[in-house]
Amino acid sequence: MNVNFVLFEDFETLDALGPAEMFGCVEEYTLKFFSREGGLIRSKQGAVLHTEPFSELEPGNIVLIPGGLGTRKLLPDADYMAALRQIAEESAYCLTVCTGSALLGKTGLLDGKTATSNKAVMEWVKSINPAVNWADSARWRVDGKFYTSSGVSAGIDTALAFIAEQKGQEKAEAIARYAEYVWNRDMDNDPFAIA
Amino acid sequence: MNVNFVLFEDFETLDALGPAEMFGCVEEYTLKFFSREGGLIRSKQGAVLHTEPFSELEPGNIVLIPGGLGTRKLLPDADYMAALRQIAEESAYCLTVCTGSALLGKTGLLDGKTATSNKAVMEWVKSINPAVNWADSARWRVDGKFYTSSGVSAGIDTALAFIAEQKGQEKAEAIARYAEYVWNRDMDNDPFAIA
Repeated sequence: MNVNFVLFEDFETLDALGPAEMFGCVEEYTLKFFSREGGLIRSKQGAVLHTEPFSELEPGNIVLIPGGLGTRKLLPDADYMAALRQIAEESAYCLTVCTGSALLGKTGLLDGKTATSNKAVMEWVKSINPAVNWADSARWRVDGKFYTSSGVSAGIDTALAFIAEQKGQEKAEAIARYAEYVWNRDMDNDPFAIA
Repeated sequence: MNVNFVLFEDFETLDALGPAEMFGCVEEYTLKFFSREGGLIRSKQGAVLHTEPFSELEPGNIVLIPGGLGTRKLLPDADYMAALRQIAEESAYCLTVCTGSALLGKTGLLDGKTATSNKAVMEWVKSINPAVNWADSARWRVDGKFYTSSGVSAGIDTALAFIAEQKGQEKAEAIARYAEYVWNRDMDNDPFAIA
């Protein structure tokens, strides 16, 4: 199975590359990086990644949508949002990190579902689509095939939880230990929730 | 000031891109990514980054050397190690993550200095250069201008500590909060030390 990362200009570096570290340690997963037109994509922090175009993205795989400042330009772009909706709809599993859930929320696919996002910008995220059941306190949430993470680093915890589900707890523990990562295993333990 | 990342084939994704997230949130820092010849470099996990050649790397800046499987091919390469030694020597500050300290150790610049590395491979790292004072239990170590981190995720803690030193504790705290990262602020707190 592939893990297909959906990148765009000014995506948040760790939203994508944190989970990439964890997924990339699962032998059965191949990581692929995409953007609308393909080519080089610069993160907000200045890392420049090579991507393939959306036209090459195969359905039936895992999709990860990062957040970041770049989401603001995409939300009003109807063509982009239609393409993203199709990618998310045709995925086997769809994960978002940080304000990636604002993008996924905008597609309508989260309507009536439980989801979360970066706690520092929750009010803005809610305003994008109030039909989503937004969780104010959650390290991550799972609703059907949709896994939505809180801010930036929470994507790493979510990726490990996803790997534990799919490949067993032992595999996820081994990856966390290898990466010397202190894994927050509890989706309800949100150190950054605003009381 | 620039933060110059030294990439190579099969570098460990998060070793470089974890600190990149944190350094990229400091307005005064510009992130640049380098490799010996420049061009596209693939991480062990499959992220492909655009890099500039070593010949474009300006001295007097911050240098970060990641680790990963790719270090094994570089250690016996005398030309590469000479180039790396020059880059580290001419840096204002030099940080390593994970087995990046094996590379830096091999240059001789850590001889007699205190340093650390990934705890799962400490015996191998020690064997590269026993003249380094290797710390078996340390999230990170600082000796002069050299900052060496333990495994993978420890690079994020070290980057934040470096930012706290250079730009103030408040700035580092704000970045950690923004990234919803539970920062391990104590270099002596090593959850992955082998007793």
